[in-house]
Amino acid sequence: MQGPPTAMSETVRQELAGIVGDKYALTKSQDMQPYFTEGNERFDSQAEMVLRPGSTGEVAAIVKACGAASVPIVPQGGNTNFVGGTIANGGVVVNMGRLNRVREVDGLNFTMTAEAGCVLADLQTAAAEHERLFPLSLGAQGSCMIGGNLSTNAGGVGVLRYGNTRDLTLGLEVVLPNGDVWNGLRGLRKDNTGYDLKHLFIGGEGTLGIITAATLKLFPLPAHFHTAFVGVEEIGAAIEIFGLMRQAGGDQLTAFELMSKAGVECFETHLGAPGNPLSATYPYYLLVEMSDHSADGAAAGAFESGLSEALERGLAQDVVITQSRQQYLELWHMRHDLPMTYPKDGAVFGNDVSVPVSQIPALFERVLPAVEAACPGIRPVPFGHIGDGNIHFSLLQPVGMAPADYLVRRPEIAKIVTDIARDLNGSFSAEHGIGLFKRETFTSWKSPVEVEMMRALKTAIDPHNLMNPGKIFADL
Amino acid sequence: MQGPPTAMSETVRQELAGIVGDKYALTKSQDMQPYFTEGNERFDSQAEMVLRPGSTGEVAAIVKACGAASVPIVPQGGNTNFVGGTIANGGVVVNMGRLNRVREVDGLNFTMTAEAGCVLADLQTAAAEHERLFPLSLGAQGSCMIGGNLSTNAGGVGVLRYGNTRDLTLGLEVVLPNGDVWNGLRGLRKDNTGYDLKHLFIGGEGTLGIITAATLKLFPLPAHFHTAFVGVEEIGAAIEIFGLMRQAGGDQLTAFELMSKAGVECFETHLGAPGNPLSATYPYYLLVEMSDHSADGAAAGAFESGLSEALERGLAQDVVITQSRQQYLELWHMRHDLPMTYPKDGAVFGNDVSVPVSQIPALFERVLPAVEAACPGIRPVPFGHIGDGNIHFSLLQPVGMAPADYLVRRPEIAKIVTDIARDLNGSFSAEHGIGLFKRETFTSWKSPVEVEMMRALKTAIDPHNLMNPGKIFADL
Repeated sequence: MQGPPTAMSETVRQELAGIVGDKYALTKSQDMQPYFTEGNERFDSQAEMVLRPGSTGEVAAIVKACGAASVPIVPQGGNTNFVGGTIANGGVVVNMGRLNRVREVDGLNFTMTAEAGCVLADLQTAAAEHERLFPLSLGAQGSCMIGGNLSTNAGGVGVLRYGNTRDLTLGLEVVLPNGDVWNGLRGLRKDNTGYDLKHLFIGGEGTLGIITAATLKLFPLPAHFHTAFVGVEEIGAAIEIFGLMRQAGGDQLTAFELMSKAGVECFETHLGAPGNPLSATYPYYLLVEMSDHSADGAAAGAFESGLSEALERGLAQDVVITQSRQQYLELWHMRHDLPMTYPKDGAVFGNDVSVPVSQIPALFERVLPAVEAACPGIRPVPFGHIGDGNIHFSLLQPVGMAPADYLVRRPEIAKIVTDIARDLNGSFSAEHGIGLFKRETFTSWKSPVEVEMMRALKTAIDPHNLMNPGKIFADL
Repeated sequence: MQGPPTAMSETVRQELAGIVGDKYALTKSQDMQPYFTEGNERFDSQAEMVLRPGSTGEVAAIVKACGAASVPIVPQGGNTNFVGGTIANGGVVVNMGRLNRVREVDGLNFTMTAEAGCVLADLQTAAAEHERLFPLSLGAQGSCMIGGNLSTNAGGVGVLRYGNTRDLTLGLEVVLPNGDVWNGLRGLRKDNTGYDLKHLFIGGEGTLGIITAATLKLFPLPAHFHTAFVGVEEIGAAIEIFGLMRQAGGDQLTAFELMSKAGVECFETHLGAPGNPLSATYPYYLLVEMSDHSADGAAAGAFESGLSEALERGLAQDVVITQSRQQYLELWHMRHDLPMTYPKDGAVFGNDVSVPVSQIPALFERVLPAVEAACPGIRPVPFGHIGDGNIHFSLLQPVGMAPADYLVRRPEIAKIVTDIARDLNGSFSAEHGIGLFKRETFTSWKSPVEVEMMRALKTAIDPHNLMNPGKIFADL
């Protein structure tokens, strides 16, 4: 990212304010501040204006005006990004929160068309009101917006069965860097008519255009959830249970989440909420769930027999199957909020790595001794999505160490983790993207052939580099 | 597509033959002929050589040599394309059939890495040997190759649950137009590290590079299939049964296929094989299937109760649930081979359209009278994938008309069908792509914004337009 560009002229400011109306053109420091700081407070924006358009037409007009005046644009949704993806360095922030209409729910087609500023939880509710499931689900769902989910290809806890946001998307409406509106809002499962453009913008981190709306897939609403909490001695057993449960339940297996003993204890200590429901503690825990569409809960048999086999074969040490809605909610609350309790126990940093599922045991076998050797007393609190090969390998500081002394070692220790993931054909950013924070890893990790191809695409679609400059590519 | 380029020099011919070996560099007319004619015999190639490389390295060397000499390249798999996608007009055909190794099956990761020349049915078998399902399934599976399936984003009969080929792909290896090899063979469910390049090549019809290998998703092998043949009076009822069965079975509903009375009778007449197993005839038939992973066949209850409800509500007129492996095979044989019997009854042409599932009744209500009005006595024999909104709206000639008199009216009648699909927010090419045959529809149907973006991508990745020239874009 270059230094801040030349300040905007008063004419341009007035033109932009005229597009959205003065009320939605923020210029005072205190008004803009809520749009300037991401959740992890690692970066701060320095934009000259925050614009809050109310329609696709206003977004297009903003982009045209900015293009004519060479003003860089940072698109922004719910501001829950982890990697600096919506941080500005000059220019304008375009916050999409006012484009928040659900334009259509088509129950027979199992689709929903929603604007970028819709909050994820509201879309889940809108689908449920039509007896449909919108399966994207993640910790920030009460504030993150679907435009951000799309731009970062968000994952979450339903990926095992339903895929990432990319896999849930049939069509997009996008304002392109030249201000043209691409209407690609199709609700079709099959449409082989040229290159599939939507996949460039999904996961494109706002560097190729501004997503203004999407047509999303819906699914039948399950009638029952079969949910269990399982204690295991080691990771290899967890992977074997995964294979066993997936064979037993097929696509009905919709969640297979990992937590650690230290992580669960952290949650219990700092939240005082019900945690481990088993009568003893184990090194690792699994939250396993099958979704059942049958009125009679027919999948219960497969669920229970799979878990029984895991116990009999000594893979699982103990199992609790939830018997009440209350217990179900408590377990999911723990899974979602667990990582939020880590900072209460000291300095912590995450490592959002993925590997092939078959390589998860090797990941643990290599990472655990390596980080202990580098930083004796370090406390690994990994959690995440076994079924997707995606482990958030969070690492808490040693007890008694000064937090600043620990955080300064972050690059060195993170490199240990990501180098091992790389060696196992993994990824250094499974869910969170590149943004500002992972640009150096992106450049050093990706092959030159791949980076060159991405640069060629960026240049083809955004030749003047006005869309979210400095993200993904450090020098653009 | 421009006229044939200047003939290749003898030096270039020798260089190319040197890369693959004389045995695999075909230049005699009779040797090349099998690679020149597609299944529907609508187009013929005029290439100067057919090259049959045996490795990714040889493919890269061919592309480099052709690039240096400005020789256009047509990549080719099993040669089962319907739209002229692998027809050459000068230059070389690169047939991928010798790259046919399954490089790896990783059962725990539910992935398989296979080379482009693997025949689809062989991949299904390789997966099954590891107790896994590779769910891509279509009529040509005994001869089509996965490289072609990828380049055309093939659909088939499993899309309802498993998606198109695009959705089954985790990673690609591609030889780019400059001869570089992009190794994107990742077996990761989550990897948000820049633009998702694979989606450009999948469905790119070979215009952006040559796919040499892919890492593909596998699934648990179902333990049971619950299959039924259903007679219905009208299309609206079929859509309602679809909603009902999807709610009853959730993701276990894996096939929901339509056939017509006239189509089934054509199959029965011309193949003499068992056809409609019901005791009466109906205007439309459905082949409905649920995949069941439970050892005890637990989904049978949901399957039967869904069908019972369809009968009770008068949506279904009659139902047969298959009771034997033999009957199951006969019904799927009919579904797969039905369209192959149409040409035995006269001149016929297909219309590979899709619409939102909720619009299928409107599609039938409008198309049927419109084609009858245009061509009295025309015999509609639609079939296809209700659950995907993809109807192959095949139209048989009126009895007694001269085939040539009918075929000359193809453009006019096809336009009636595609115009209605367009009006219903559909697609004019759901599965088959653009190739040579649908280029004019592509240009007239797609928005200028969309076509311009595709052209910009083509130019960015293949600036000298050597990869499958003339496909998708008429003037490139």
